[in-house]
Amino acid sequence: MKKTLLLLTAAFLLLAPFTQASRPGEPIQVITPAKEINIAMSELGKKLYFDPRLSKSGFISCNSCHNLSMGGTDNLKTSIGHGWAQGPINSPTVLNSSLNIAQFWDGRAADLKEQAGGPIANPGEMAFTHELAISTLQGIPGYVREFELTFGTPEIDIDKVTDAIAEFEKTLVTPNSRFDRWLLGDDEALSDKELAGYQLFKQSGCIACHNGPALGGNSFQKMGLVAPYQTENPAEGVAGLTGIDADRFKFKVPTLRNIELTYPYFHDGDAETLAEAVDIMGRLQLGRTFTPEENSKIVAYLKALTGEQPSFALPTLPPSTEQTPPPNPFED
Amino acid sequence: MKKTLLLLTAAFLLLAPFTQASRPGEPIQVITPAKEINIAMSELGKKLYFDPRLSKSGFISCNSCHNLSMGGTDNLKTSIGHGWAQGPINSPTVLNSSLNIAQFWDGRAADLKEQAGGPIANPGEMAFTHELAISTLQGIPGYVREFELTFGTPEIDIDKVTDAIAEFEKTLVTPNSRFDRWLLGDDEALSDKELAGYQLFKQSGCIACHNGPALGGNSFQKMGLVAPYQTENPAEGVAGLTGIDADRFKFKVPTLRNIELTYPYFHDGDAETLAEAVDIMGRLQLGRTFTPEENSKIVAYLKALTGEQPSFALPTLPPSTEQTPPPNPFED
Repeated sequence: MKKTLLLLTAAFLLLAPFTQASRPGEPIQVITPAKEINIAMSELGKKLYFDPRLSKSGFISCNSCHNLSMGGTDNLKTSIGHGWAQGPINSPTVLNSSLNIAQFWDGRAADLKEQAGGPIANPGEMAFTHELAISTLQGIPGYVREFELTFGTPEIDIDKVTDAIAEFEKTLVTPNSRFDRWLLGDDEALSDKELAGYQLFKQSGCIACHNGPALGGNSFQKMGLVAPYQTENPAEGVAGLTGIDADRFKFKVPTLRNIELTYPYFHDGDAETLAEAVDIMGRLQLGRTFTPEENSKIVAYLKALTGEQPSFALPTLPPSTEQTPPPNPFED
Repeated sequence: MKKTLLLLTAAFLLLAPFTQASRPGEPIQVITPAKEINIAMSELGKKLYFDPRLSKSGFISCNSCHNLSMGGTDNLKTSIGHGWAQGPINSPTVLNSSLNIAQFWDGRAADLKEQAGGPIANPGEMAFTHELAISTLQGIPGYVREFELTFGTPEIDIDKVTDAIAEFEKTLVTPNSRFDRWLLGDDEALSDKELAGYQLFKQSGCIACHNGPALGGNSFQKMGLVAPYQTENPAEGVAGLTGIDADRFKFKVPTLRNIELTYPYFHDGDAETLAEAVDIMGRLQLGRTFTPEENSKIVAYLKALTGEQPSFALPTLPPSTEQTPPPNPFED
């Protein structure tokens, strides 16, 4: 009998980590690593993501504004584009962007693939054309070989390029944050203050928009719901697409994953700190002024959302040859 | 007797790869991996190398113009700096730069450490000041901790910053090119054409300047020795430092290691292809016009000088905080 008890205890101890519930009632779900990735395509996409030859200047790559050393952003108010153009809007993070309902702040691209083609041809960003980008890649024998291995044909087109970039971007999820570990049942993963911050985050209504595995990215909401948002930034949000006045300042709710790394905040990059962003959100979206103590608790919670950053070897790019059109940084 | 012979044969076969001579008579030596690296310092230096917060804009890092995905260069004629400034000279590769007799085309920095401070404070490059760069780093708690771990003090200064960057740059050697394998005794490592190119490289006098383990980097020579070099680039070379007319157009001989990756060529970046560069060098430095066949042999040889590119995980940078001065890309 004593032996049976001992065995049962041992079995319980062994099973405990696996049977611990993952807090199913929570409005936020654990973020999981990417699955079913086409590795050849993703590796090719990684090279393209880091390749400034997709820009007219040969100087700007996807990684310039969605820098994977810096939370998948450029940490600038608004971005720098071709000719040092001042971008119109804050670069959203590429991390976990596969979870977004749509891409760009106004959701004008349906998915990562559609998004990837945008900046290449935007005169204020990479300032190239799809045709010139393709003729550049087609002039790089190392790429021609890799496209053939990946797609079964050496004919490169923008469809394949954006497929590959999107496949790489799907790998850029950031699991295993301390909050995820808490969601998975590890009570020690959050401090009391962080946990209090999470409770406040839910009770005060932040959770209404920042929910799901990415804590956002899954709906469009008006910036300045209770009180109007003051900004010098001319972006109109969804109204810029629909022309409907009610869509003015309606933006995709940004993810709060890795928010400690993706400063400054909001579509205009106007909030430099998390404390400032939480304060503005409270007043303008929830009609609530957080006390400094409440603010500090929520900020503490938000910092527990930093997950494992993508880890991979810096890619080596295939060299240009005599057949490759050279970049054109200083000419029209 | 038969048994002894067998044993001797076996011993010979076993020893053969180790006793194969490394062609000691050659004027070019095998390039060897970095030794005696301070790993903590080099890892810190790697982060600093990739950190655009060392620039005024928060957009330009060492890696912007010495891109380790692209042979340690930007593959531009001349570089792009702060405000899209057009740089005065072609960015030399950082690869194997620890072997250089001095740094910059005119050798104005004695070593890697002295070089590393230059672009940070150059108004046409990163456009910062050492003081502002240090106050930025000092405002990033992750860096303060890492400097303390590495240098034993949390006080950051430009001396420590450039020490760390230089330590990382010392790791950027590219061993094991096919030519190195040939130098080590592997007769199969070079094709007949490449070997003929190497013989021609020696016989025609290229070797007079491009020798040593880096095939260059170890002397200053006049560009346009036999016939004058025509260029619109205003760089004067060493004369810009000494004021001596005889030093006009005297530049550090660039390394030929990884030359296939470091296009375009010369201090003005005016030669787009290796064939063009070899042709100009022959006529202007050696008074010799290579036939297309000779040119093609030398180019084939030069392409065998591409070594193993540095391979490491893209660093994740410590985030800025409320204490960190934000970047200033668009203001004076």
